[in-house]
Amino acid sequence: MLGFVLNTHQQWICRQLSDAGYTATRQVAIADTGHAIQATVRESLSRADFVIVTGGLGPTSDDITRDLIAGLLGKRLHKDPAIVARLEAFFAQRGRPMPVSTTVQAQVPEGALVLDNPHGTAPGLAMEVTPNPFRTDGKTSWLVMLPGPPREMRPMFTNHVLPLLRQKLPLEGAFVCRTLLTTGLGESIVEEKIVGPLQPLVDAGLEIGYCAHYGTVDVRLVARGNGAEQLVADAEQLVREQIGPQIFGTQDEQLQEVIIRLLTERKQTIVTAESCTGGYIANRLTDVSGSSAVFLGGLVTYSNESKQNLLGVRAETLAQHGAVSEPVVREMAEGARQRMGADYAIAVTGIAGPTGGTETKPVGTAFIALATPKHTFVLNPVNRFDRPTFKQVTCHQALELLRRTLLKS
Amino acid sequence: MLGFVLNTHQQWICRQLSDAGYTATRQVAIADTGHAIQATVRESLSRADFVIVTGGLGPTSDDITRDLIAGLLGKRLHKDPAIVARLEAFFAQRGRPMPVSTTVQAQVPEGALVLDNPHGTAPGLAMEVTPNPFRTDGKTSWLVMLPGPPREMRPMFTNHVLPLLRQKLPLEGAFVCRTLLTTGLGESIVEEKIVGPLQPLVDAGLEIGYCAHYGTVDVRLVARGNGAEQLVADAEQLVREQIGPQIFGTQDEQLQEVIIRLLTERKQTIVTAESCTGGYIANRLTDVSGSSAVFLGGLVTYSNESKQNLLGVRAETLAQHGAVSEPVVREMAEGARQRMGADYAIAVTGIAGPTGGTETKPVGTAFIALATPKHTFVLNPVNRFDRPTFKQVTCHQALELLRRTLLKS
Repeated sequence: MLGFVLNTHQQWICRQLSDAGYTATRQVAIADTGHAIQATVRESLSRADFVIVTGGLGPTSDDITRDLIAGLLGKRLHKDPAIVARLEAFFAQRGRPMPVSTTVQAQVPEGALVLDNPHGTAPGLAMEVTPNPFRTDGKTSWLVMLPGPPREMRPMFTNHVLPLLRQKLPLEGAFVCRTLLTTGLGESIVEEKIVGPLQPLVDAGLEIGYCAHYGTVDVRLVARGNGAEQLVADAEQLVREQIGPQIFGTQDEQLQEVIIRLLTERKQTIVTAESCTGGYIANRLTDVSGSSAVFLGGLVTYSNESKQNLLGVRAETLAQHGAVSEPVVREMAEGARQRMGADYAIAVTGIAGPTGGTETKPVGTAFIALATPKHTFVLNPVNRFDRPTFKQVTCHQALELLRRTLLKS
Repeated sequence: MLGFVLNTHQQWICRQLSDAGYTATRQVAIADTGHAIQATVRESLSRADFVIVTGGLGPTSDDITRDLIAGLLGKRLHKDPAIVARLEAFFAQRGRPMPVSTTVQAQVPEGALVLDNPHGTAPGLAMEVTPNPFRTDGKTSWLVMLPGPPREMRPMFTNHVLPLLRQKLPLEGAFVCRTLLTTGLGESIVEEKIVGPLQPLVDAGLEIGYCAHYGTVDVRLVARGNGAEQLVADAEQLVREQIGPQIFGTQDEQLQEVIIRLLTERKQTIVTAESCTGGYIANRLTDVSGSSAVFLGGLVTYSNESKQNLLGVRAETLAQHGAVSEPVVREMAEGARQRMGADYAIAVTGIAGPTGGTETKPVGTAFIALATPKHTFVLNPVNRFDRPTFKQVTCHQALELLRRTLLKS
């Protein structure tokens, strides 16, 4: 609650739940105090069938969640010898002595299931709260406690929590969810184009959701029960008929993953030459495992000298048109493609801001070039955003230009 | 709540509040339904002196917050002609017709203050809830509604909400907060080293907080009331005496900002040659406005060919030692420094994973080199993390090597 840490749990957990057909109704963050933790768990157990708590299971003095929840529910804690053995093995394997405080993580409330943690020391815990003294409707609830670090929490959620949820609170009937990722159209235009054709399917039970990000709009198609699979398949086909060229991916396949997949399928290669995006595009492409097969390399040419020396941009072109210009970005892309021996080269130059803008080239001005074996294409958007968002949006436009060109070729 | 959007509001707003001396006690995220919104605002008003609501103020059909809150508080809405005029000017300036739905954003609950939004169409609203029917202690609360997009919300918070908060709920006495950013020591070691020397200051009212990230630990020093300034200054000096070399910055000055500042002060230049980090280091450096004065450029040399052609790494070195090796990273750094004519060059090669590891070079292996006018320094950490975290941690180690070298030179 001091604002030192970005909470990524909400998005990640909610996405897993919604893709599995469950509805997350509320996320709460509170300070590490006994009163706040107990009051919030009590409230949550009064409202929900399944409550997920993250953090506070470690060995230090502020890891108080396990004790507080056991206390709230009137459960005794006992030391689980299997967990102790696993903790000892964890430290032995790393050749380190086990601090005494570690064994607090082997404390298990009576009746709780232990969820194995192969990536850290604190196991997760799951327990049915029955009877649930905080609900007035007589129902029981499940309570799950997970460690805070994402690389421990996420596999535990996938391998233990989701199966438990499916077993204890099974969905009634089928659930099918498909998300189409679109770009190049605003949210209201996307909605306008597909809402009419999809109306008969909506009448038959289809649910449509939209989510706009910078430069992209996700369209989420959901159906439940008998015929759900067919309903979503029909809906996807109708959406593709309306805005097919704008759909660049599905579910969690990000644009850079689509690019790497397309290039890998075609056995083609790509290089980058970046000025204003400063390595952002290369970084995005190399976030994809396996990108080394198609991404040969990238140049970040911030200075005029590096544009000349590394890419062969001519001094006259720089002098005549300025570094932020169509002729320069064209020479950057063609130079990068030729010098690094790739099928495609993306080049970007522009004014990320906040300083450096002029009357004719305001902050946000970008020139994006794609050099291909036959042509060089250039875009000239004006992306009026803060510096990090400028990089993100400009990168997206460059990758999207490449994607469309790949699909046409 | 579907998990399509990462909520960055909590961290940002809580950080502003805690740095200003206010305690954020709870953050709640809920679905866009009338019941959930009204119930949560009611609960919040029953607990807190100041309630901040974000999102749901726009012109589309799911922007229902303004109406629901006015309804909850029994306030009528009226159309504010000044807002209508501003909206008309906003669209006129952009040469676009104003959609009819836009004017819903000119609706203001009676008695509310209007907070200007220079970055978008929806103004913010602030109102004193007096009497506050949801509190049992007879106190009033303030309720503020802000637009959801960060680039609209953040300036509005800084320019309007924080001044309002300071005026309506002034702190009692002084508040001084200073955060020292440290690296190279674990959280428990940092605590161990400073907790003894600081004890007399803690007895005098100093508060110490720690926050560990990957590779860094923030130490937050807080004091209130008379003498707070002196107490925090004394504490900072004591911490610097204990772990001075590990402190790389203060408050919000990130490591890359420190690097760009140090290089700018010394009129020295830097280039990068990255393999496994794929442009991440160049991207981090160029996130800093003004970096173009000292960052000449970067090379992302994923393939062996690009390491040879662009950096002059010798084929024999690659064949004999492999691309992930000390001799290769050394030649990468020295080649980059020489070819691009910089004072310093950072080079990185390694195995980001998840594939590509071997018995002797497991996933996470990294070689980091820093070439300087006199020497080339090499580090060989093993960073066993997922791919994005590997990039982040390796980049941090490389920049920290540069920072320490700069300070020594």
